[in-house]
Amino acid sequence: MNYFSSDFKLGILGGGQLGKMLLTETRKFDIQTYVLDPSDEAPCKIGCNQFFKGDLMDYDTVYNFGKQVDVLTFEIEHVNVTALEKLEAEGIQVYPSPKTLNLIQNKGTQKDFYAHHKIPTADYRRFETLAELIRAVEEKHIIMPFVWKSTEGGYDGMGVKVVRNAETLESLPDVQCIAEAMVPFKNELAVIVARNPSGEIKTYPVVEMEFHPEANQVEYVICPARIDHVVSEKARAIALKVSEHFDHVGLLAVEMFQTIDDEILVNEVAPRPHNSGHYSIEASYTSQFEQHLRAILDLPLGNTDSKAAGIMVNLVGEEGYSGNVVYENIDKIMKLDGVTPHIYGKKQTRPFRKMGHVTIVNKDIEQARRIAEEVKNTIRVIA
Amino acid sequence: MNYFSSDFKLGILGGGQLGKMLLTETRKFDIQTYVLDPSDEAPCKIGCNQFFKGDLMDYDTVYNFGKQVDVLTFEIEHVNVTALEKLEAEGIQVYPSPKTLNLIQNKGTQKDFYAHHKIPTADYRRFETLAELIRAVEEKHIIMPFVWKSTEGGYDGMGVKVVRNAETLESLPDVQCIAEAMVPFKNELAVIVARNPSGEIKTYPVVEMEFHPEANQVEYVICPARIDHVVSEKARAIALKVSEHFDHVGLLAVEMFQTIDDEILVNEVAPRPHNSGHYSIEASYTSQFEQHLRAILDLPLGNTDSKAAGIMVNLVGEEGYSGNVVYENIDKIMKLDGVTPHIYGKKQTRPFRKMGHVTIVNKDIEQARRIAEEVKNTIRVIA
Repeated sequence: MNYFSSDFKLGILGGGQLGKMLLTETRKFDIQTYVLDPSDEAPCKIGCNQFFKGDLMDYDTVYNFGKQVDVLTFEIEHVNVTALEKLEAEGIQVYPSPKTLNLIQNKGTQKDFYAHHKIPTADYRRFETLAELIRAVEEKHIIMPFVWKSTEGGYDGMGVKVVRNAETLESLPDVQCIAEAMVPFKNELAVIVARNPSGEIKTYPVVEMEFHPEANQVEYVICPARIDHVVSEKARAIALKVSEHFDHVGLLAVEMFQTIDDEILVNEVAPRPHNSGHYSIEASYTSQFEQHLRAILDLPLGNTDSKAAGIMVNLVGEEGYSGNVVYENIDKIMKLDGVTPHIYGKKQTRPFRKMGHVTIVNKDIEQARRIAEEVKNTIRVIA
Repeated sequence: MNYFSSDFKLGILGGGQLGKMLLTETRKFDIQTYVLDPSDEAPCKIGCNQFFKGDLMDYDTVYNFGKQVDVLTFEIEHVNVTALEKLEAEGIQVYPSPKTLNLIQNKGTQKDFYAHHKIPTADYRRFETLAELIRAVEEKHIIMPFVWKSTEGGYDGMGVKVVRNAETLESLPDVQCIAEAMVPFKNELAVIVARNPSGEIKTYPVVEMEFHPEANQVEYVICPARIDHVVSEKARAIALKVSEHFDHVGLLAVEMFQTIDDEILVNEVAPRPHNSGHYSIEASYTSQFEQHLRAILDLPLGNTDSKAAGIMVNLVGEEGYSGNVVYENIDKIMKLDGVTPHIYGKKQTRPFRKMGHVTIVNKDIEQARRIAEEVKNTIRVIA
């Protein structure tokens, strides 16, 4: 198959920042792209060959879009899987496959999958309704505090809550959910695994998500994770095991906990380029976006090693500001060594909206960490 | 000035591969771009906010285009300078300035500039017509062999010829020209200097252009140049001196010869991102394209150091092939360590047309050089 400067067409469902960073790679390789997104202001509107506006959850919209391309991928999991299944049955290559997506879209199914394949994960129980969950707590099958997760529709920490008392419990929405044991952990880690249809597999280094000590928000993604080599090898091995069982094509980002006993528990996965891999654009020999493209097109996978230490800082809208975005002090952070801002191109900011990220690359990881903190304390996303 | 996700508009004259790689950076920063190019199939047609088709040498076209933007830059020197002067006079920021462009567009003026500022360069004489040159040779003011250069319109080795005998001499076109002494040299070197309106200046490392032993074509651009540290410091210092005298804004690529006596002679300059800096996309902390953008927008300049050794191989159309391009064996080179192809997006190949380039990044420069040779011997740009 000839992808480069040819008639080949890659379809991308979703036109957000992940799609936009993927388009940088399709442009580099001169691969034609069609993008579908519900918003007229999608960051992907520029940089693709053709942009289509439409609902990603609508069967006909997704099906008709997919029929025009040779390979179909997505940058968001909330898409119409039935349409993908139909397209796959009709010979369109859909990567990651609808099968993978089906396993992942429902957090209950995803947990069952780990349990079935003996992949270490926090203990959990599934409930169809809120009433069922409340009864289980009353009957002491579930002990507070625990972690409540809606099985569907959750995104970026939405649909997740720590339940410590009856009041919180009763305020939960009445949806299918899981109750998960709270596991004291030292670190949140992630490993991105790439796999192509020929079966070639590569893993990126283990990264560490450093949280704000008070707010429960990832502040920095740090590559490589500053953890013991034995633990990091264990994390990489578990990520590989997850990848093998999913039998996916494309990237699989595996999020994990490192417990206080240095056990590794799988939290959840995403079958696509991931926030925890953004550092790779500057720090890795092959960025995760180029790698996703190589993987779904069955090209040889690139080197996942790092050229230098990389740290990513998310740029989210500051609380109290909504409207036309202004990146205050962006010129100040651009003075700092090895700092690259990525602005996603959303015109409007609102509290906690992901507006961009900043990568810090340095030979010395501790120096990178200091610069990252300065970046964090300097730039403000306001209106 | 707020450039990021704002109403600010950057205009780019020329929509070829240099513009395309610059657009990658404007997308990363979400800076609005307008592009003017004569071809409907320009690589920049995708990735800019608005594309305009038009003649870059036409006064009205360039002027009307320029009136719509806040800052105007170019990716090719063959543009209507009178229109740029008018735009500048009317308050549009034009970087590099028409003054810089005027000095550079004519190779005779450029050489006079070096002579005037005591910047070392090969001895030369200017001639208004071919007849004048022939007379000077007959009168033995000019001794063959020498290097003939057309003062205007040359590009990528066009308009340059080594004159060894009367036959070649008489076959030259009747244009303004210079005759330059042939200087035996060890290496062709280049240094890219970045400068912003505030006067901040940074130089990239010295790179080496390795030529094919028979064909007179650059095969590899190697960063850093494998030369003595003293010579490399001298080259960097001379490049800085050139930059200071040009007083330019944006990038200035300074091409130089290292003579057999380790003297440095300036050959010519280009006031824009340059083929000799393409390695920087993967190998440098700040790519030359991001740096050009930082410079013309008066943002702080980024770190010009390298994360690893970088080598660039040009992908040019193979002799004997014209038509719809095919990149034969591109999948084979993508298997090699640290290899990234850049495909410019030209649909049609023809002999020696620049169709793309490949970067090889490696901690070990000798290993990078071996891989570069394998790349060169494997990939073929055919039809």
